[in-house]
Amino acid sequence: MSEYITHDQRGRSVGIVQKKYFTFAYPPDLFPLECGAKLGPITLAYETYGQLNADRSNAILILHALSGDSHVAGYYSKDDPKPGWWDFMVGPGKAIDTNKYFVICSNILGGCAGSTGPSSINPRTGKPYALDFPFVTIGDMVRAQKVLIEHLGIRKLLAVIGGSLGGMQVLEWALRYPEMVHAAIPIATTTRHSALAIAFNEVARQAIMADPNWRGGNYYDGPRPEMGLAVARMIGHITYLSDRALRRKFGRRLQNKSQFSFGFDVDFQVESYLRYQGRKFVERFDANSFLYITKAADYFDVKRQHGEGSLVKAFSKARARFLVISFSSDWLYPTYQSREMVKAMKKNGLDVSFCEIEADWGHDAFLIPNEKFENLVAAFLERVSREFEP
Amino acid sequence: MSEYITHDQRGRSVGIVQKKYFTFAYPPDLFPLECGAKLGPITLAYETYGQLNADRSNAILILHALSGDSHVAGYYSKDDPKPGWWDFMVGPGKAIDTNKYFVICSNILGGCAGSTGPSSINPRTGKPYALDFPFVTIGDMVRAQKVLIEHLGIRKLLAVIGGSLGGMQVLEWALRYPEMVHAAIPIATTTRHSALAIAFNEVARQAIMADPNWRGGNYYDGPRPEMGLAVARMIGHITYLSDRALRRKFGRRLQNKSQFSFGFDVDFQVESYLRYQGRKFVERFDANSFLYITKAADYFDVKRQHGEGSLVKAFSKARARFLVISFSSDWLYPTYQSREMVKAMKKNGLDVSFCEIEADWGHDAFLIPNEKFENLVAAFLERVSREFEP
Repeated sequence: MSEYITHDQRGRSVGIVQKKYFTFAYPPDLFPLECGAKLGPITLAYETYGQLNADRSNAILILHALSGDSHVAGYYSKDDPKPGWWDFMVGPGKAIDTNKYFVICSNILGGCAGSTGPSSINPRTGKPYALDFPFVTIGDMVRAQKVLIEHLGIRKLLAVIGGSLGGMQVLEWALRYPEMVHAAIPIATTTRHSALAIAFNEVARQAIMADPNWRGGNYYDGPRPEMGLAVARMIGHITYLSDRALRRKFGRRLQNKSQFSFGFDVDFQVESYLRYQGRKFVERFDANSFLYITKAADYFDVKRQHGEGSLVKAFSKARARFLVISFSSDWLYPTYQSREMVKAMKKNGLDVSFCEIEADWGHDAFLIPNEKFENLVAAFLERVSREFEP
Repeated sequence: MSEYITHDQRGRSVGIVQKKYFTFAYPPDLFPLECGAKLGPITLAYETYGQLNADRSNAILILHALSGDSHVAGYYSKDDPKPGWWDFMVGPGKAIDTNKYFVICSNILGGCAGSTGPSSINPRTGKPYALDFPFVTIGDMVRAQKVLIEHLGIRKLLAVIGGSLGGMQVLEWALRYPEMVHAAIPIATTTRHSALAIAFNEVARQAIMADPNWRGGNYYDGPRPEMGLAVARMIGHITYLSDRALRRKFGRRLQNKSQFSFGFDVDFQVESYLRYQGRKFVERFDANSFLYITKAADYFDVKRQHGEGSLVKAFSKARARFLVISFSSDWLYPTYQSREMVKAMKKNGLDVSFCEIEADWGHDAFLIPNEKFENLVAAFLERVSREFEP
């Protein structure tokens, strides 16, 4: 366990972040996965913010997206250049107010930021799992999180909240453990990937596997498939933005004033941005984790896994109050996909609020400060908090 | 020169396709390019369909897109499995009726289907140019085509027609040689790439250049950067379709019935489709040509190159009658970009018709048979043909 004093952007201490590791399912008691394999030990890296109250009625689980981690908010030190990935949303006095709520965020199973994933050591061989790592589904990620939540002594979560892949985990929580979820906020997400989303993921995976340094996943003792992973990340970044966001952010502005290079170096600022995003990503992310997590996202299918082909039937399992949020310019998980899930929830008589937020930033909008978005989340949490008896 | 009898799908002869090569600008009389370099000799591979009439008033130049070639229609032989790339549009009795019109289509400068490009032999070294090939712009491609058109004895074209990158060439023709263009049909195209379009091209280029077989472009004596080029093509294919097209064509259908593989092989049909498109493309396309042509497309900017920053000023040069066509589901060059050019044309009092065709197939719609689309082209050509005095 390590404790960090967090600071806001002006350097003031804003609370304590605790980063911890929880390990479970040692052999012979291995954790069974949906693919049929068993895995153990499993470590989940997690952070908590705020204090769990006496009746344990203020616990909020935040689920992160593809490239996220447990560090949802705050700075680790005064020198830390960047706060956690959802710092505008989570913290004292913010929408997810850590003065009121006890916030938990764990790195997903299969990830590479402290939790067990393909880059972890396989206890049977003493080497990284690489492709010997078994397939994990969104369901497996959530089942592992449940062990953590129980370990923390929480019987019922006030809310589960997450965007994108995190939103899939929100839906999975609400359907798999309805008795443990009082309220759920799936944001910028979908009940199942469209062919378009699968297509982008597949090309990204192909880019990684085409990198000769990938070597069938066994690259941990040598150079990493950085070029492939960078291309994969660039593809992702395009899907996270929108035509309009890219126009506003970059347009056709040139990196070097008014001159074309007549070469294959950077001409346009958008090229520079993408190359930078690609380079930055490979410093912190494991290529095999990218493969596993994108595949888990592609497999995710609420209808198939919970409703025998019917979305309405799937949501008949749910008991949570829902706040579903989409963003108008999100073309990875467009609003029509949120409407579809809202419809299925309503057909089951569930308490569901839905809001499509006008925002130009595409899928990434859920990671960008937005007063309307923050107020919506804050008000919903206040309401469901009043109604909650754990 | 080679002559082919073309056949329709039932094996009947439908006319004669002539595939020819025209070479010009031998040293010392090199062809000056917009980047400042000079190139020569230049060969353009071209095909013609139908007969040029006595007063040379029935010549139509068709301009192909990124991966197209001069083989716009017909079969080369009875065993030829596929006709030219726009066979539904061009041929006897079709919208671009080769019983009436004399159709010319040449492979673009920088291409790899017979015309001079980076894979051609550099006469100075006796080896392929590779990256010593100078940068060619859409303007250069059109200037080379003009030499060919003059060589064919045509003073004024009845029409220039093309989709996508071909549409850019249409616009360039209309602005650069207004006295040679009676009518112009730019289809599913843009006056300049958006940041989104540049972003996709850049990621595709990065995928090629990340392939170690690319070797700075000098791969002609060894293995080719097939993995990188395949990834580049897959990225392209996603942008050519639409969310809806992909849903209709593939949805979440699995390649092997109802089983997930829990592996990185193909699970979904859309994955199989993309991998197939990637594999097929590398058999026929040169990776360096892909780099040069995508860069030419990114550089293309009517406003900048013809209007000193003003689209209205740019189109003040044009004299042609225009038929601008966009497709409702094209998100690579969305309809708003066509509207923009139509507005600028109208402000110049040009004779312009505009039609957004409802079609689910995204950008690729211009390559898919569509009665409305074909009728529109046929009717416009009939009209402008009546009005034409060469």
